[in-house]
Amino acid sequence: MEGISKKIYLELPFPTEEDCRSSEMRILDGLKEKELDARMSVRVMRMLYPLCEEAQWRITVSLAWNGDFWEITDLEKGDTSERHYGIAVDLGSTTLVARMINCHTGECIREVSCYNHQIAFGTDILTRIFYCKDDKEKLEEMRKASVESFLECMEMLEKETGIPPQACISMVVSGNTTMVHFLLGMDAFCVFYTPYAVRADRPGFHRGADLDLPVNGYVYCYPSKSNYLGGDIISGMVATKLYQKEQISVFFDIGTNGELVIGNREFLLCGAGAAGPALEGGVVKTGMRAANGAVDAVKLKDGQFFIHVIGEGKPVGICGSGIIDLIAELFLNGWLNIRAEFVPEKSSRIQKMEGGYAVEYAPGLYFCQEDIREFVRTKAAAYTMVEIMMRESGISMDEIENFYVAGAFGKHVSKESAIAIGMYPDMDEDRIINAGNASLEGAVLLLLQRDIVKDIEEILEKMVYIQFGAVDDFLHMMQAAQALPHTDFGRFPTVMEKLEQIQGKQLY
Amino acid sequence: MEGISKKIYLELPFPTEEDCRSSEMRILDGLKEKELDARMSVRVMRMLYPLCEEAQWRITVSLAWNGDFWEITDLEKGDTSERHYGIAVDLGSTTLVARMINCHTGECIREVSCYNHQIAFGTDILTRIFYCKDDKEKLEEMRKASVESFLECMEMLEKETGIPPQACISMVVSGNTTMVHFLLGMDAFCVFYTPYAVRADRPGFHRGADLDLPVNGYVYCYPSKSNYLGGDIISGMVATKLYQKEQISVFFDIGTNGELVIGNREFLLCGAGAAGPALEGGVVKTGMRAANGAVDAVKLKDGQFFIHVIGEGKPVGICGSGIIDLIAELFLNGWLNIRAEFVPEKSSRIQKMEGGYAVEYAPGLYFCQEDIREFVRTKAAAYTMVEIMMRESGISMDEIENFYVAGAFGKHVSKESAIAIGMYPDMDEDRIINAGNASLEGAVLLLLQRDIVKDIEEILEKMVYIQFGAVDDFLHMMQAAQALPHTDFGRFPTVMEKLEQIQGKQLY
Repeated sequence: MEGISKKIYLELPFPTEEDCRSSEMRILDGLKEKELDARMSVRVMRMLYPLCEEAQWRITVSLAWNGDFWEITDLEKGDTSERHYGIAVDLGSTTLVARMINCHTGECIREVSCYNHQIAFGTDILTRIFYCKDDKEKLEEMRKASVESFLECMEMLEKETGIPPQACISMVVSGNTTMVHFLLGMDAFCVFYTPYAVRADRPGFHRGADLDLPVNGYVYCYPSKSNYLGGDIISGMVATKLYQKEQISVFFDIGTNGELVIGNREFLLCGAGAAGPALEGGVVKTGMRAANGAVDAVKLKDGQFFIHVIGEGKPVGICGSGIIDLIAELFLNGWLNIRAEFVPEKSSRIQKMEGGYAVEYAPGLYFCQEDIREFVRTKAAAYTMVEIMMRESGISMDEIENFYVAGAFGKHVSKESAIAIGMYPDMDEDRIINAGNASLEGAVLLLLQRDIVKDIEEILEKMVYIQFGAVDDFLHMMQAAQALPHTDFGRFPTVMEKLEQIQGKQLY
Repeated sequence: MEGISKKIYLELPFPTEEDCRSSEMRILDGLKEKELDARMSVRVMRMLYPLCEEAQWRITVSLAWNGDFWEITDLEKGDTSERHYGIAVDLGSTTLVARMINCHTGECIREVSCYNHQIAFGTDILTRIFYCKDDKEKLEEMRKASVESFLECMEMLEKETGIPPQACISMVVSGNTTMVHFLLGMDAFCVFYTPYAVRADRPGFHRGADLDLPVNGYVYCYPSKSNYLGGDIISGMVATKLYQKEQISVFFDIGTNGELVIGNREFLLCGAGAAGPALEGGVVKTGMRAANGAVDAVKLKDGQFFIHVIGEGKPVGICGSGIIDLIAELFLNGWLNIRAEFVPEKSSRIQKMEGGYAVEYAPGLYFCQEDIREFVRTKAAAYTMVEIMMRESGISMDEIENFYVAGAFGKHVSKESAIAIGMYPDMDEDRIINAGNASLEGAVLLLLQRDIVKDIEEILEKMVYIQFGAVDDFLHMMQAAQALPHTDFGRFPTVMEKLEQIQGKQLY
């Protein structure tokens, strides 16, 4: 397995009058003996003397793949080939997650994360885009904010591991189209504006220095398929290996936006759409990020709420996974009807408040009808995306081998609850797979496997993008999906069973 | 014919919802239609918007070849494909000569030259090498001095043509091994110190920015064959096409050092040796560079000197071509004997002075016995190099199709005089060819013909280097060559004829 960087230890013959090859050729020939053609950077030419002589020609050469050839990016005395590091970054609009990888063993040395410094220019992407639209200076501020976020993570990594970023040869970044535009210093208004033709979507390999990132080798940015299907999704394809399997799988990344891919080694159908900030607890009144004090799991039994609070302290709000549990439990216990409306006679915890009913899910914390409506619209959008993709591909849910859910959502949300509210299709829970931070995983894989670059070409070529906006009956289908779990409840047999179990009656 | 840079005008379709390819892919696809695969630099990605839109997708793309692929280095609105420029530089230790080339037509737009700023650290190369030996800061001073020399030439070119260096996509540099080491920022002590294994001799293509040179594309530095056979000689091979011919030729570049190649498309035998500064008028008492006031041509008739003075003013000294004329005339007229000693009874212009005889070749200007001795040693060294090479290759002078003399020497020196003193072999003058600044010519050719890079590989592979120091009877042969024209005067039949004609007697 060959990554996008190498460290090779060479024991080279000393120059003599008979063998007076240049230091450069001596090293290049040494690499050729190991079947490696390389070029030497000017930076390394300047290091040749006196390093090679001092090391008595026992040297370790760092090499970075730039998409076309291997470039020698560093020289060290002696055998340091086991000190071979790289960095993989998931460049999210909110959070940057960086992993330092031991490229010698393939292991993760450390993972750190920090907020994206761009947040200073707006928490949501659109605000940031408008901030720097048609203003080169502000665009440069935005670019620098990206870079600073990288530097913050790299500083943390250095602090925790003692390994400076300069010791990492190469870096792989996956991020959505806007994030990559900003990192490269490109205007991103195009991402959200018709005809959605972005500036650059195949960035490939660029020198660290060209991006102001401190690695000596190259930075590979995952390409985008389209404005809404960014490098993070392509990276997710790589992480799940969806494009290599015989069986058909679904890949679902849901956050403020939902991105969806269905396919196998033969085809990849994909789509993306706004899901709404509800899933990240954004618009819900007592909603919050998954931080200390957030309710992240809810059970309702015998009219009582049993909640889990992050940090085990006093609850101060509810995060995405808590919301989904809450709605599922309310529904399964009959506190919400199929139209997702409160059934106030079910409990005294459902109280009439300004603007409608609300439920007190924790002492002093309410979740109101409007919150539920917002959330149900979101889950309906998500479900409808899947439904349309299935219909377009002519595939039934039975044919789906795995349903990958990427990101924080997949990691924290209870599969059972997500099925209960009709957000996930009603399928065997074993087949619903938490893909974790697939974007980051894909970045790590590419760092360690150079051939993936070719796979990515194949993925991009196979991907067929379906514009949900262009689907005639999208709104009609979404309407049907706004019921709990769905107007066509025959699609959710296990949910029906549960309702019967809990409520002890045939409901529909 | 394809050079190492391109400018291509593209008329691209406007983005629509149906064709929402990125600006990057739109351009790369446009190039692909012209059968060109390219990559886009970050710099250009940042230029895409709003340039493409403002230009209504009528744009000209600049491309630079980097040895492995084409890189897009610039974008301009409209069709500017005819404004396609490049720079070729002969990087001499004394003088830098730069030509701005119209790469669209292949014509030279302007040639300028300036002193190498390194002269501040020593007029001769060795002084410079010692100046910065084992001192990174001084080496950096030396590197910057090289760069400043380039900048001076480029500024002159901009002043005279209105074309800034940034409008030149690529650059080709040929220089000797030391000069290229300094340009790249490498210690050059190795060039003159056993085992003569230099730092780097195949520099190839590097970004302008990596060398602090203001071209947006790449700078190609001609490789060296060995410490004394630098890129200027390889460039000379390219200029004379010696390596492509069926007939055997000799290439001779003589200055402070002499470099020599003999061969054809089958073989290339080469050597180099110190010739001595005499040829550049360096050690001769009234010697000077070929500048205003220098005697550059001499005739002796009926006991009278007829001289030509550069600038047509009062003579103040004598330059290389004048010296060779002078010695030839003195010898042909019998004022010098075969041992290059003055024959004082021949003229009252030969006067006894402190340290021996001297001749007054112009009012108040003397050329003394010691000057002649020094010069004869130099010409003997030059001749012996040729002789040894001929012997080693088993080739006789009759088999030589052309005798190329490169550099200022070839340009200014009278062939007849050089033969008369036994510096050039006695051959048909038509076959002795002034190769001019072959180093610069070769640089220009590569700028315009990318394939030459492959030829250079071939040249380097074919070249066999003969160490003159390792030739047993070198000193003995050189001794024989210190006669005028040579101890074995049978080798110079036309000179013998001339002596007879002029002196009216059978001499030997």
